[in-house]
Amino acid sequence: MAVVCALTITFSYGQSIVYTPASDLTLVGKILPTQQVYHRVDTTDHPLMPPAVKRRLTNSAGLAIAFKTNSTVIAAKWCTSSRKTLPNMTAIAHEGLDLYIKNDGRWQFAGVGRPKGDCTAYTLVQNMEEGEKECLLYLPLYDETVSLEIGVEEGSSLQAMKDPFEKRILMYGSSILQGASASRPGMAYPARLSRDTGINFLNLGLSGSAKMEKAVADMIVTVKADAFVLDCVPNSSPEEIRERTAYLVNTIRQHHPLAPIIVIPRTVREHGAFDEEVGNWVKAQNEQIELEVSKLLRSGVKDLYLLSYDKQLGDDHEGTIDGGHPNDLGFDRMLQQLKPQLLKILRKYELTPTKGL
Amino acid sequence: MAVVCALTITFSYGQSIVYTPASDLTLVGKILPTQQVYHRVDTTDHPLMPPAVKRRLTNSAGLAIAFKTNSTVIAAKWCTSSRKTLPNMTAIAHEGLDLYIKNDGRWQFAGVGRPKGDCTAYTLVQNMEEGEKECLLYLPLYDETVSLEIGVEEGSSLQAMKDPFEKRILMYGSSILQGASASRPGMAYPARLSRDTGINFLNLGLSGSAKMEKAVADMIVTVKADAFVLDCVPNSSPEEIRERTAYLVNTIRQHHPLAPIIVIPRTVREHGAFDEEVGNWVKAQNEQIELEVSKLLRSGVKDLYLLSYDKQLGDDHEGTIDGGHPNDLGFDRMLQQLKPQLLKILRKYELTPTKGL
Repeated sequence: MAVVCALTITFSYGQSIVYTPASDLTLVGKILPTQQVYHRVDTTDHPLMPPAVKRRLTNSAGLAIAFKTNSTVIAAKWCTSSRKTLPNMTAIAHEGLDLYIKNDGRWQFAGVGRPKGDCTAYTLVQNMEEGEKECLLYLPLYDETVSLEIGVEEGSSLQAMKDPFEKRILMYGSSILQGASASRPGMAYPARLSRDTGINFLNLGLSGSAKMEKAVADMIVTVKADAFVLDCVPNSSPEEIRERTAYLVNTIRQHHPLAPIIVIPRTVREHGAFDEEVGNWVKAQNEQIELEVSKLLRSGVKDLYLLSYDKQLGDDHEGTIDGGHPNDLGFDRMLQQLKPQLLKILRKYELTPTKGL
Repeated sequence: MAVVCALTITFSYGQSIVYTPASDLTLVGKILPTQQVYHRVDTTDHPLMPPAVKRRLTNSAGLAIAFKTNSTVIAAKWCTSSRKTLPNMTAIAHEGLDLYIKNDGRWQFAGVGRPKGDCTAYTLVQNMEEGEKECLLYLPLYDETVSLEIGVEEGSSLQAMKDPFEKRILMYGSSILQGASASRPGMAYPARLSRDTGINFLNLGLSGSAKMEKAVADMIVTVKADAFVLDCVPNSSPEEIRERTAYLVNTIRQHHPLAPIIVIPRTVREHGAFDEEVGNWVKAQNEQIELEVSKLLRSGVKDLYLLSYDKQLGDDHEGTIDGGHPNDLGFDRMLQQLKPQLLKILRKYELTPTKGL
């Protein structure tokens, strides 16, 4: 891999910082090829999808830049759209950056890019030891990343590196999957799964819009993936679950005959403990998905799995920011339950990293 | 307790909602009497405190409203200052509301007030069972609460209730104590401690400004408290820790001869693993506070405790939003270590609830 071209030089804290377009480096987590490099899916290729889905697909959730550098400083300049941060998210998660550096063989948090409006220049980390570092920079979860440049010290190296993750597991789901309400982009649950396992979990979280529409199912099956995880319960009405689950599962099976399809069978709305309408709605959603998957299994669909997810976000009801969206504590409890089950299935299909876990 | 006067009636979702000023109900977590009811300390009484400290004392961190109602809906109308939400916080935590309802003897999350600008009307929870509920509504952590009204169904009861927490433990510290970066007001760590233990932990978190200045120490000792917890390491330089810890501790001891003084001895900055300057700074802060407390203990100060806090925010480096501020996962890990130690000390002084824990 060649050292990429430096485009701009600016000065930060007395150091000369050289900026390089992130698109010259390695883009991790990409679902389908797109014209705008930080979109997840090119919506012009799938015109029948609902407008809300198309808008979500411009969000850079799950995308990250992988690179190596021997710089002691890492900075970034980036622009997002003018979309305002939602009240149940931090601006860092919504439109900021999140940097990890490999340390003793593990990805370790190193710094965030705090947004200061739609365009920001920020030093993510500085005063580091000399020597080469492997870096992974997560992009905004809930905004469109319009441009991104990565800055290193003048005279230091900056190189694309091999995608650190193996295989491709497409995760299709709601805001919870997209990253609401993780505190920063790297805390979205597919990102945590990837770092923990070395497997490439692709984030097709569509906030409020994971409703299993036919046009979305038809787009999903064009994705080159080794397995499919469906986390669509939160956004789909019991009726939609009843009407649409079979088409989604059968269409994936038809186009990907050997890929396991793994369903996350429940959602949680903590305020549903008091709001009886919400409680009944969630109960009906959860019962309906179990029913649909059971029917599909009985009809002979192979390699289809329904995960067990009983304890959900813990038993103290503190695992969400607003009842419906896990906070980092809720996500941690969720992964403690789901990760071992996911890995057990993926291992069976030889979809875990060659080095083992 | 009399049913308080209804002031305004509006209509929400077809229901008639009657609003009552929250100041007519029970204010929980109050540190000192103030003219503006949702300030924590009246800064005109302590003119020598630094301007930044005075500004923080107008934030309603740690304050909550306790009330009983048989309404099936709870709504709120509130106004905050024009201060913008920080990028490392959610707007719900910064300027929103957080409602808990007693369920089987425990405080349980019931709903949030999502801010929509400086003034908001919002239904926190609805469709509840009939019957009386005990409620605790947390106020914004990082903004001034200018006004607050609580709404219930017309014809339902709304009453002040007894403060649910016993004793008074003053916690003085930084942004971490004030609540950065909990996902919502009720997840600030003193609030979690109060709900978990039944003890009244008072939030004197002063974001960026817990520097143990003499004028602040002189204000602190005027607070009627049964114990003092000091979590000032994050904001104080090693030099300030060296120069100011003794005055703070000795002045508390002089004015509160029997109150235990409990020091949280460390702070964490996860990016300090890579940023050597930050890493060295934090190491120096943590060493200095241990040194100062050891000196005070050797000089004969009684009832002074230094907590043990080694594992800090866990070992995966995922417990913060930005390196310095815990996310809800980090706070949970922090409490798992600190809570048993705090309770052990408070039990010794008979400062745990009469019902026991």
